[in-house]
Amino acid sequence: MTDGAPLESTRLDSTHLDSARLDAQFAFLNEADKLKQVLRATTLTDGSRRENSGEHSWHLALYAMVLADQAGPGVNIDRVIRMLLLHDLVEIDVGDVPIHSANGQAHGSAEIQAAEARAAERLFGLLPDDIGPAFRALWEEFEAAESPDAVFAKSLDRVQPLMHNIESGGGSWTEYNVTAEQLHQRVGTKVARGAPALWDWIWARAERFFRHA
Amino acid sequence: MTDGAPLESTRLDSTHLDSARLDAQFAFLNEADKLKQVLRATTLTDGSRRENSGEHSWHLALYAMVLADQAGPGVNIDRVIRMLLLHDLVEIDVGDVPIHSANGQAHGSAEIQAAEARAAERLFGLLPDDIGPAFRALWEEFEAAESPDAVFAKSLDRVQPLMHNIESGGGSWTEYNVTAEQLHQRVGTKVARGAPALWDWIWARAERFFRHA
Repeated sequence: MTDGAPLESTRLDSTHLDSARLDAQFAFLNEADKLKQVLRATTLTDGSRRENSGEHSWHLALYAMVLADQAGPGVNIDRVIRMLLLHDLVEIDVGDVPIHSANGQAHGSAEIQAAEARAAERLFGLLPDDIGPAFRALWEEFEAAESPDAVFAKSLDRVQPLMHNIESGGGSWTEYNVTAEQLHQRVGTKVARGAPALWDWIWARAERFFRHA
Repeated sequence: MTDGAPLESTRLDSTHLDSARLDAQFAFLNEADKLKQVLRATTLTDGSRRENSGEHSWHLALYAMVLADQAGPGVNIDRVIRMLLLHDLVEIDVGDVPIHSANGQAHGSAEIQAAEARAAERLFGLLPDDIGPAFRALWEEFEAAESPDAVFAKSLDRVQPLMHNIESGGGSWTEYNVTAEQLHQRVGTKVARGAPALWDWIWARAERFFRHA
């Protein structure tokens, strides 16, 4: 371990090829910065402001670390973490589509899916060929929600906004007039599929917001 | 894979013990939410606002995924990612201490280190015993900056603000009147130690901001 390179001359060590590779890697990382400006329907737990999709992605990765014991057999938590770090990047081009917006019809529509595929093409296409396609495959695996890793990652992505709505006193449920049935259909089934005990625990805390719905 | 549990009765499946465990896990996850309200000296790449430490942690984990090829031998990128997801949590109690503030004397002072240790005690202490101590150990490993994983994680933590200052036209260097020598000493040596080629590449892009310093 060296104590640092001299100020000058070190640039000469880098080949042109290395430099172009880092150019591509940082083009992607700088573009990714824009995810911090995409706002979600859900607020922070204290209700003070809307959450952005960058900080949301961090929080979800932390959820995966903390709630690893809720994952089913065969789930690789490190892959889940990587998946969650990438899962919302397409929103840089498409924006966040709240799950309860347009009476639950917008999220996952063919139109949105096509726009997200174009965004993935553009964003992951910024990266070198040995990185971009692997990232895109991980994002597609998340979207398909079939592999054990993706099913668990989706559960966490659904459970975090529930927690924030509980903490902030109803949050986006009130805003979108969500009923218990809609919540169960759009969210509960997805959480329970990947983490059944988590759904039991969270519904026990959410149900009071739906008693008069 | 089930299609979701029935709305009622599922709560009875959870034992009291499971429930208390999830209470602790979510006490930590809800407390962690506060990291999104800790502001850093550095702005987003477009200079529009200060970055918060939650979204910064996400961005750094993405840096680790994208720049994995810059890591030295023996570095485990998945451990680096986990380390970076946790590395700033103590700021919930202590706040962000900008590296160039108080003429570079505040960051890493004994006083700040003691406050951060108390914060770690409180925050990781919210978690069950099979999670909290392991998280705390990972954070301490990062702080010690001795293991290959921690040295690489520290390089990324130093390089990201450089990139943001370059993109935003000088950023916190201007604000704190940082000289090339100070940058090299406080930042360059740390980046070069874990990722020498990365330092070469970034200094080639940063040096124009220091020509008249």
